Parts: sequence; C-alpha cells; structure tokens
Amino acid sequence: MNVLDIINKTKRKIKLSAEEIGALVSGFTDGSIPDYQMASWLMAVCINGLTDDETIALTLAMRDTGEVLDLSCIENTTIDKHSTGGVGDKTSLVIGPIAAACGVCVPKMSGRGLGHTGGTIDKLESISGYDTELPVDRFLSVAKETGFSIISQTEELCPADKKMYALRNSTGTVDSIPLICSSIMSKKLAMNADCILLDVKYGSGAFMKTYEDACKLALLMERVGKAAGKRCRAAVTDMSVPLGNNIGNALEVKEALDILSGRSKGTLYRLCIELAAEMLELAGKGTNEECRTLAAEAVSSGKALDILEKTIALHGGDSRVCRDTSLLPQARFSYEIKAAEDMKITAINSEEIGMTSLMLGAGRVSKDDVIDMSAGIVMNCEVGKRIGEGETIMTLYSTVCSDFTEASQRALSAIEFVKFR
Amino acid sequence: MNVLDIINKTKRKIKLSAEEIGALVSGFTDGSIPDYQMASWLMAVCINGLTDDETIALTLAMRDTGEVLDLSCIENTTIDKHSTGGVGDKTSLVIGPIAAACGVCVPKMSGRGLGHTGGTIDKLESISGYDTELPVDRFLSVAKETGFSIISQTEELCPADKKMYALRNSTGTVDSIPLICSSIMSKKLAMNADCILLDVKYGSGAFMKTYEDACKLALLMERVGKAAGKRCRAAVTDMSVPLGNNIGNALEVKEALDILSGRSKGTLYRLCIELAAEMLELAGKGTNEECRTLAAEAVSSGKALDILEKTIALHGGDSRVCRDTSLLPQARFSYEIKAAEDMKITAINSEEIGMTSLMLGAGRVSKDDVIDMSAGIVMNCEVGKRIGEGETIMTLYSTVCSDFTEASQRALSAIEFVKFR
Repeated sequence: MNVLDIINKTKRKIKLSAEEIGALVSGFTDGSIPDYQMASWLMAVCINGLTDDETIALTLAMRDTGEVLDLSCIENTTIDKHSTGGVGDKTSLVIGPIAAACGVCVPKMSGRGLGHTGGTIDKLESISGYDTELPVDRFLSVAKETGFSIISQTEELCPADKKMYALRNSTGTVDSIPLICSSIMSKKLAMNADCILLDVKYGSGAFMKTYEDACKLALLMERVGKAAGKRCRAAVTDMSVPLGNNIGNALEVKEALDILSGRSKGTLYRLCIELAAEMLELAGKGTNEECRTLAAEAVSSGKALDILEKTIALHGGDSRVCRDTSLLPQARFSYEIKAAEDMKITAINSEEIGMTSLMLGAGRVSKDDVIDMSAGIVMNCEVGKRIGEGETIMTLYSTVCSDFTEASQRALSAIEFVKFR
Repeated sequence: MNVLDIINKTKRKIKLSAEEIGALVSGFTDGSIPDYQMASWLMAVCINGLTDDETIALTLAMRDTGEVLDLSCIENTTIDKHSTGGVGDKTSLVIGPIAAACGVCVPKMSGRGLGHTGGTIDKLESISGYDTELPVDRFLSVAKETGFSIISQTEELCPADKKMYALRNSTGTVDSIPLICSSIMSKKLAMNADCILLDVKYGSGAFMKTYEDACKLALLMERVGKAAGKRCRAAVTDMSVPLGNNIGNALEVKEALDILSGRSKGTLYRLCIELAAEMLELAGKGTNEECRTLAAEAVSSGKALDILEKTIALHGGDSRVCRDTSLLPQARFSYEIKAAEDMKITAINSEEIGMTSLMLGAGRVSKDDVIDMSAGIVMNCEVGKRIGEGETIMTLYSTVCSDFTEASQRALSAIEFVKFR
C-alpha cells in the first residue's frame, strides 16, 4: 500500500478501498505516515470530498485505532448523544437525566470548550468536586447505577481522531463534512452505545453556518451510524441565537438545574423535551408523542433532577447545588447593560455573544487557558422581545475581569434591534 | 499574515496577493511555516490551480529566496535553455556550443537524472575530469571566454524550490502546471540570462503526458518569463519516442559529439538546428531562416565542436574525447537484440526504454545511487523503419550488469512492430 497512490487517488477523485483508508489511518496514527502526507490527503478530501462508503470506512478505521467500549454490563438500552456544539448549549445536562429517568442509560464522553463555544466537561467542572476523569470502569458503574454519567473523552478512544483533529486545525482542513462526520462518529462508535442521537446545529454560533450543510452532515452521520449497526437519528437545530438565556459554565449549570427543577419553562425547556423524546423514541420507549409525555413527567415528577443529583454525588461533586444553585461559583463583578430607549430585538449574533463570554473569562483562547467558572452572560432578551428604556438587556459576570467597557460594547454589537419613540 | 487564511483562500479559489504568496514562500523556506501547512496548500494548488498572476508572484517569491546571478560581466547577449527532460535528451550539449559559436553566451545550470529520465550533469560527468561544481565566478569566466558552460545547480539559487520540490515529491503534489512552472522558472530567473528558451516535451517518456498540457505549461512559462522582463520562448516537442539513438550517459555524449562533428545528420541533428535557431532568433541574431543557416554553419565549420572542446578543457575535463569518442567510458558487456523475423517498427515507448537503461545501471532509482557511466542503449530503430530477420534492433551496454535477460525483455516490450512474411 503506497501512500502516494492513496493521495493521488483522492486528488483525482478515484474511490479508495476500505483497505487503503485503513492503511492510511493506522499509518498516520502509529507515525509511519508523516503529518505532511496526511495534510496533503486531508486537503484533497476537503476539496474533492469522499463518497459515503469512503466516509464509513474512514470512520471505522479511526474507531479501530483505539479501544471500543464493552457496554454489555448495562442491561437497559444505552444511548449516546452528541451536539455539534454552540453558544449556551447545555442540553446534555438536561436530557441525559430525563432519558435516564425514563429507563434508558446515557453513558457519555464529552469535550472541553475552545474559542467561542463551550464544552460540557468545563460546565460540569464548575460543580465543586465533580471528577470528569473517572476511570472507565467507575464511569460505567455510575451509568449503570443512575442511568447517566458524563466523563471527559479518554486517551484510549480514537487516538487517530485526536491526532487528525490537531493536524486539521493547523492545515485549514477543518471544514469538510466527511471529515467532521468521521471525527464525531468514530468517537461515538468507540463509545459503542446501542443508539446515537445527533444534534447538528447551524447558524452564526455553530460550526455549520448554513441549514443545507447541517442537513448534509446530519444525513451522513445517520448513514455512517446505521452502517455500523447502530440505531441513529440526527436532528438539525437553529443556533443563530444562543441556546437559552445563560452563557458561561456555572451560569449554564444553573440554567440546566432551573429547567430540571421545573422553574424554567421557556424555549430551551421545550427544545430539551423534544430532544429527550427523540432519544426515548430511538430507544424504543414508545411513539414520539408518548415519549414527549414521558420526558415532561420526568421533569415534573422531579425524577430527572434526582438522577442528576445522584450522578453528581457519585462523581464526587457537591450535589447540594441541585437544590441550592447559589452554591455554584458566583462572580465577583457584574455589569448590567440597560436599554437607552425602547427597543425591539430583531437578531442576536450568537458567535459574538460567545466571544463576549470568552472575553469575560468563561472560555479558552488557547488550549491551556484557565477558565473563570463564574464568568458569563445572562440574557434578558430574545428575538422579538420588547425592552423598555432603562430595562436590563443582559448582565455580564466575571471574577477575573472588573472592567466591562470592551465586553459590554462587544455584547451590544451582537444585538440588532429597532427603536421605538 | 496568517498562514491558515492563505491556505483557506486557495482552498476556496480566492486569489492570493503577491504579499501573501511571498510570506508563504519565505516562511516555508526559513522553517517558520511547517511542512504540513505547506503540503496542505500545495494540494489545494494541485486541485484548484492558481491564476497567472499568482503563478508569477509565486515564481518571483521563490527566485527571491536565494541569490540572483549578476551576468553584467558578460558582454554578449546571454541565453538560458531549459528542457523539461526526457529519455535520450542530450540537446543542451549540442545547441549550447552551436549558439556560442554564433556569438551568444550560454551559461547554464543543470540537474541530475532520477528514475527513467537522465540529467545533463550526469552526462557531462561521464567525461573524465569534467568538474560540474565549479564556483560561480569560475563558471561565469568560462562562459565569458568560450560562450558556453554548464555547472550543477548551486545551493545558493532558489532554496525555496529545492525544499518545495522535495515536499511535492512526497505529498503527491508534483503534477500541477503552476507548480511545475514556478519550479522551473524561479531557477531560470535566478540564473538571470537575457533570454530563455524553453523546450517542453510531451509523450510517454516526458513529464507532460499530453500535447495539451505541454502547451499549457509552455504558455504559462512564457508569460511568467515575460512578466519578469525576459525575452522568452517555449517550444513544445514530441517525446513519445526517445530523442536520438543513444540512451545512457557516455553514449549520449558520444551522440552529441557525432552531431557536432558532422558525422550524424538524422532527426536529432535537425531538431538541434531548429532549437539552436530559436535561441539565436530570440537573442536577435536574425530571422529564423537566417539563424537556421548560422546554426548549420556552426556545425559544418567545426566551430561549435571547438567551443565544446575548449569548455570541457576549462572545466578540467579530458577534451580529447571531442576528437576520439573511444576515450569515453566503454561498457564491459554488451548484448545485441536481433530481429527474429522481418518487421516494421510502429511505436517505441520511451518511458520503457528509459526504464531499461535504468536497469542497466545508467540511472538512479533513488537519489544516492551510483551511476554506471558506460551503461545504456544504442537504438538501431525508429518508428517506420523496416528491420530484416537477424538484423540488430538495439544494443544494450553495461559494466555493472552482465546478465541481459531481464533488460532485453523489457527493451523488446517497449517496441511495437508489425511482422512481414
């Protein structure tokens, strides 16, 4: 198997065999194929694409560079969930416990945030003591006991993906639907749950900027999941505005807890019920209508919150936060942005809101930055809402930053509105 | 200047500025841009191409990574010549002396052979004592004195090209017309002669397999040369059959000497007169018709051979070879391939002939191989020629290889013929 032949085929849009793709992926992972050859191939893929068969082969080859989990110890149907991420996306913290409360098991590995998007692992670490690095056997036993557990992606799963992603990041080869698909799905297939629910976001705050691209990615991921023998469904959701009102790690955990405790019934609550219903339907818990009812009952009965509480405790975290969110990290400084006149919000640029949150200390500019868990934004605005003169549009929070001049300007520039006289 | 922005632009077919291309080339050459980023960009160029303006900017940026020669010490018009190479191509050794005999100066840097194609430097080194590594000042003084000198490409010219070529070779990004153009032209522009004659070969033994691609490359190189202020012309010539009868280093020098001494007047002689006439016309020595006459006279008068003799002597070589070709390295073993029946040659695959020559020891499979200067092939056949039963089709020569079984089979397979009864 000559690597130049492989590169030349993709360059000339000649389909690769599964064996050729396997040799490329394993050679790159073990270091026998140098990064410059892989970079050249990745760019050829970026421009010329891959067939669905090639994408399936690539995903399986990446999965097989590392461990594939054995979930046979879990009796309930297992379901994994993946969101392509965005600003203010805390759905995993809500729908995992809901699904668990309805009798399915959600063992999940998540990532950390980088740039304007957050990561579920960072959010969980804003809960004092929560250990996101449990060994896999402990992780599985928590999942078995409560039905829900989240840890950080381990080194043992998909080493190929880690290496390829770093290379793509520095070679301009990130924005390729087959490469994004194989990166996500290889990890999901290594996690090895029976069902996989995918939430592909589009819009300014998301990775996929257009609805069309999000649909392409969703369809391709479903196809790959099914080809690997999984029950798999992909939802496509709008991320052109931030998800929910709170952005920032502890603030997002608070919002998730507000929903699970029934205090918050807004747009985000409804989206979570929809996604949880999709999960339950996929796991065979009934029709979509029935599953929606089950999900709502899991919240109203308090069962979902109980599960999250138990899971946090088993991870060594301070589970009292579930009943008292003031125990979450609180910002030292805050700043209210008020309306200078009557206005109606017409658009919110969630990428800019994410960047504002980053400026406040809630995220990482580069990989090794330390996060201010208390930092973030609470939005008092959504598209279509009228805000009177002097009313609060949003509140900025931070402990590491006390000067809100720049951040408030950036936050305001993210809002489009019309004025009233 | 962000390298990812540059990569992304080419990936999306957005034109780069000369400044962006300059930053990329100088960054790669000084090592601040790693090879995997360059590999990614090169593949994007391979697939998406570059505009002519971008190719010009790339060529000039590559030229400017190293020394640009100062030829002002030479009074005569200077002319450089480049052939894209092929099997049996010894034209430089013939037309350089012819042009010099007609009053233009030909200072030239050449390369070594790799794979099935030969290199002019290797051919010259088959002449005992010829120093292909003269310092640049000595090289220029030889060129000034005799009008003709060839040395090996120096390290000081176009370091970017050396580094880029090595990377292209190992990343499947060789076959790109803008990249081939900038590689050749950056070196020619660094050589800095007043005029540049380019000989783009096409066919099985050449780098460009089709006439169309050869024309595209020729046109682009002319455009780049002119944009850099040079008189520049590109000829497109057929390389689907080997050039001349002899293939192999000493054998090719012998054939060049046979032409310059007037002993050989065949197809290769006529091609050399044509190319020399193009050179002279470009240098302003008259109409093409007049220049053809001048070139023929340079051979018939013996002036061209005198110049080559003097040049070889000034390079420390045994110039007696010009009058006695038996002083060139002679093979220890030879093998005649004879016609088993009457036949008429219908095609000769020059790539396969080149590979046979390689098997006999005349070339390099990898960069550090040692060449058998005596090895090669003398063809007694050309397309359309009838060969009677028992007559010699070709003779194989070698010193390092005494078993001609495989080589003779490969050589025969390169010949297509029809039989007569």
